[in-house]
Amino acid sequence: MSFSTALESLYPPARLLREPAQLAPYESDALTAFRSRPRAVVLPESSDEVIETVRLCHLHDVPFVARGSGTSLSGGSLPIADGIVIALNRLNRILRLDPDARIAVVEPGVVNLHVTHAAAPYGLYYAPDPSSQPICTIGGNVAFNSGGAHCLKYGMTANHVLGIKAVLPNGAVIELGGESLEPVGPDLTGFFVGSEGLFGIALEITLRLLPRPEQVRTVLASYHSLAAAGDAVAAVVASGLLPAALEIMDKLAIEAAEMSVNAGYPRGAAAVLIVELEGEAGSVDAEFARLQQVMEQTGADEVRLAEDDAARARIWKGRKGAFSAVGRLSPDYIVQDGVVPRSRLGETLARIDELSATYDIRVANVFHAGDGNLHPLILYDGRKPGELERAEELAGEILTLCIDAGGSITGEHGVGMEKRAYMPRMFTPVDLDVMRELRWAVDPDELANRGKMLPGDSPEGSSASRHPHPLERQGIISRV
Amino acid sequence: MSFSTALESLYPPARLLREPAQLAPYESDALTAFRSRPRAVVLPESSDEVIETVRLCHLHDVPFVARGSGTSLSGGSLPIADGIVIALNRLNRILRLDPDARIAVVEPGVVNLHVTHAAAPYGLYYAPDPSSQPICTIGGNVAFNSGGAHCLKYGMTANHVLGIKAVLPNGAVIELGGESLEPVGPDLTGFFVGSEGLFGIALEITLRLLPRPEQVRTVLASYHSLAAAGDAVAAVVASGLLPAALEIMDKLAIEAAEMSVNAGYPRGAAAVLIVELEGEAGSVDAEFARLQQVMEQTGADEVRLAEDDAARARIWKGRKGAFSAVGRLSPDYIVQDGVVPRSRLGETLARIDELSATYDIRVANVFHAGDGNLHPLILYDGRKPGELERAEELAGEILTLCIDAGGSITGEHGVGMEKRAYMPRMFTPVDLDVMRELRWAVDPDELANRGKMLPGDSPEGSSASRHPHPLERQGIISRV
Repeated sequence: MSFSTALESLYPPARLLREPAQLAPYESDALTAFRSRPRAVVLPESSDEVIETVRLCHLHDVPFVARGSGTSLSGGSLPIADGIVIALNRLNRILRLDPDARIAVVEPGVVNLHVTHAAAPYGLYYAPDPSSQPICTIGGNVAFNSGGAHCLKYGMTANHVLGIKAVLPNGAVIELGGESLEPVGPDLTGFFVGSEGLFGIALEITLRLLPRPEQVRTVLASYHSLAAAGDAVAAVVASGLLPAALEIMDKLAIEAAEMSVNAGYPRGAAAVLIVELEGEAGSVDAEFARLQQVMEQTGADEVRLAEDDAARARIWKGRKGAFSAVGRLSPDYIVQDGVVPRSRLGETLARIDELSATYDIRVANVFHAGDGNLHPLILYDGRKPGELERAEELAGEILTLCIDAGGSITGEHGVGMEKRAYMPRMFTPVDLDVMRELRWAVDPDELANRGKMLPGDSPEGSSASRHPHPLERQGIISRV
Repeated sequence: MSFSTALESLYPPARLLREPAQLAPYESDALTAFRSRPRAVVLPESSDEVIETVRLCHLHDVPFVARGSGTSLSGGSLPIADGIVIALNRLNRILRLDPDARIAVVEPGVVNLHVTHAAAPYGLYYAPDPSSQPICTIGGNVAFNSGGAHCLKYGMTANHVLGIKAVLPNGAVIELGGESLEPVGPDLTGFFVGSEGLFGIALEITLRLLPRPEQVRTVLASYHSLAAAGDAVAAVVASGLLPAALEIMDKLAIEAAEMSVNAGYPRGAAAVLIVELEGEAGSVDAEFARLQQVMEQTGADEVRLAEDDAARARIWKGRKGAFSAVGRLSPDYIVQDGVVPRSRLGETLARIDELSATYDIRVANVFHAGDGNLHPLILYDGRKPGELERAEELAGEILTLCIDAGGSITGEHGVGMEKRAYMPRMFTPVDLDVMRELRWAVDPDELANRGKMLPGDSPEGSSASRHPHPLERQGIISRV
């Protein structure tokens, strides 16, 4: 039976897309610069269908990529040419929610925010909060170890995934981790989380739920310079406070947010610092008193406390909507994602400012300041010849700054398609070899999300057919 | 050049131990029931010597095990017969301590507590605190993802290791992670942490340091029954408090601690609950008020607050010395290590009590109650025929309880030699296959800590020579 016939016997026509018009929406994800048409898209409605599909791919040597809502900013869910897309949005059930054990077992297509909605009646919530949380799925969060504004205090997705049931690229089903925070042996769950789809597809994910904090105080402070806001971040952290979120937006980002959602940020401020304190009422009061001191000492022009939930929501609406708001300032923009050690935030921002002047390209800065995760938004006009190329060059220079400062090429958006070329800048050949060897141990044919994350000669080609296997190099095995 | 000659050219005689009297101290670790004599012990004084030694082992097909202070309770540093021991105690330098970035880069032989001592002048400390912290080494902590009383709030070793430079079993040197909490791609650092020495030897470890809490309050509450103390734990957690530590000791453990270190625990109590609150002064005051309420509501007979550092140290001396104190009650004992979901603590403890009665063997319970990590101490007299066997059987039944309750066979001591046989109870054949496949990707000859963690037919044999490689099974490769 051919692969096509096998798919037809597995899926009814409505869930097996092959017409160009049906395939078009799947040709790219949120990184729209890349585009690739898959051979087919399947819409499974059960774990068994996913497993069976992966087994067929393995049998017929067809590469596949799993996709949730397609919000990847690094091209992580870009289709593989001649491969298939396994779209998981219909696997959107919360299978179990145990308020006593504080866990939820969910399917990969469950939307991030829906977990929190389901947990709300029990006073619980799911902590990792990417800006895309109203639409992005847990499966995608797992693949990219997604972060968010509140990850400063609570950690990334990896810190909130206790267990994963997954189908490996060869069709075998594996259970990693469990319901405990104390794993046995090497942390295979952590190995799977952040592996960008290279090790298979998660079918069931056990998430940790946290008790909703008794009190939240959101404070907005404005500063007369970006450097002063950066210094304030260092001062807050040095004071021993661990806010839930510690965010900075610069002048251009403030302007964009104001034009778009009217968040009520102080007009004319060079930078705003958003600090959120969470915990029990008594603790938060004590922390807030200290925070006010720190803000006075660091010369904040204005400190504003959100008086109620509506005011708080307005502050966050501006921050979380900043990316799309920038669209009002510029026809096109690139969202960069890099990390520098917190202690080097100031100098890095100054250098970005210089680069922006040199390239004559505006850069808006929105970032998770507490953990040094920068999101420069590089504004350009794609209709002007050569401007995209210069914007991309500037984006690359910013990444180089991050690497040179001892940081990282991605804080939370992942490597995907976008940053494969930078991997050798961060990792030695031995490092990359080990990643490849581990990948081949699980997927010798590179069927799962081929061409992503690990650098290769050609994005679409299987390096399995070009590179000797490590055991082969050591003379232990030879290829049949 | 033979392996022996090569070692002689690498090490002066004082650092190459081969005489029986020299080897004797290395024949076992803290799990003294197992014993095995290595071919030699080497004492490298630099990373380069470790790397060169591993390369020689690879070249000559000699298995090796790295060893720190030998405090493993699961036989994790038991020598491999005919292999060598690489003793890392002389690699005990703190290479860099950056108080602004809050990191320390250390060699593997650095003692856990020495990191905290070095960081103290800057108001910082290293959080993971196994009971053995005055002697155990960071390298061992990394291999076993060690926990401790304060891991309830701060997480295990894996949450505090940012980067690792390691030598792989084939002699290649790899750098995992970095100085950031936001890793790129699959979490290889987390994969290495907890891998029990199977993936190579850590040469430099980048640790996260935390600011020392401004205030610490340690509270000791006594209860009239173990179940009541267990219920109190649930009530503390349900109240939204996240104490730094939440420990329980039962009657027998209290008795042992009193005899041994005179910790001043309330005599006659059926159980004591130790709760430690940490943070800023204002927050801790607020939390303490709430904790007092909870303790009243849960019927504590007596609640005692440590008045000063000396009183606090005394409480912890009793708790951390409980294992060795039990030696006063019984000539021999087994320290078991298992995990149950916190919600099932009560029933598990009741069942342990029943088993203790059935076997007519005393069990003292000391445990990290907050995360459900039990440490039953099974008291027996090895001089009485058959008693060891019965104690081991009881220890096994307790593990079975943990597995059946949805817990784990180890919370922090690791699988090592001791619990290999239980791995198939927790993991499916596919799970274990993937672990083996990943291991072979890095170490096809199983040179690194052969015979540990992963179950095999014989503890000492190389399964590489018996099992087909996964790629071989799939017909992709054949063995030369």
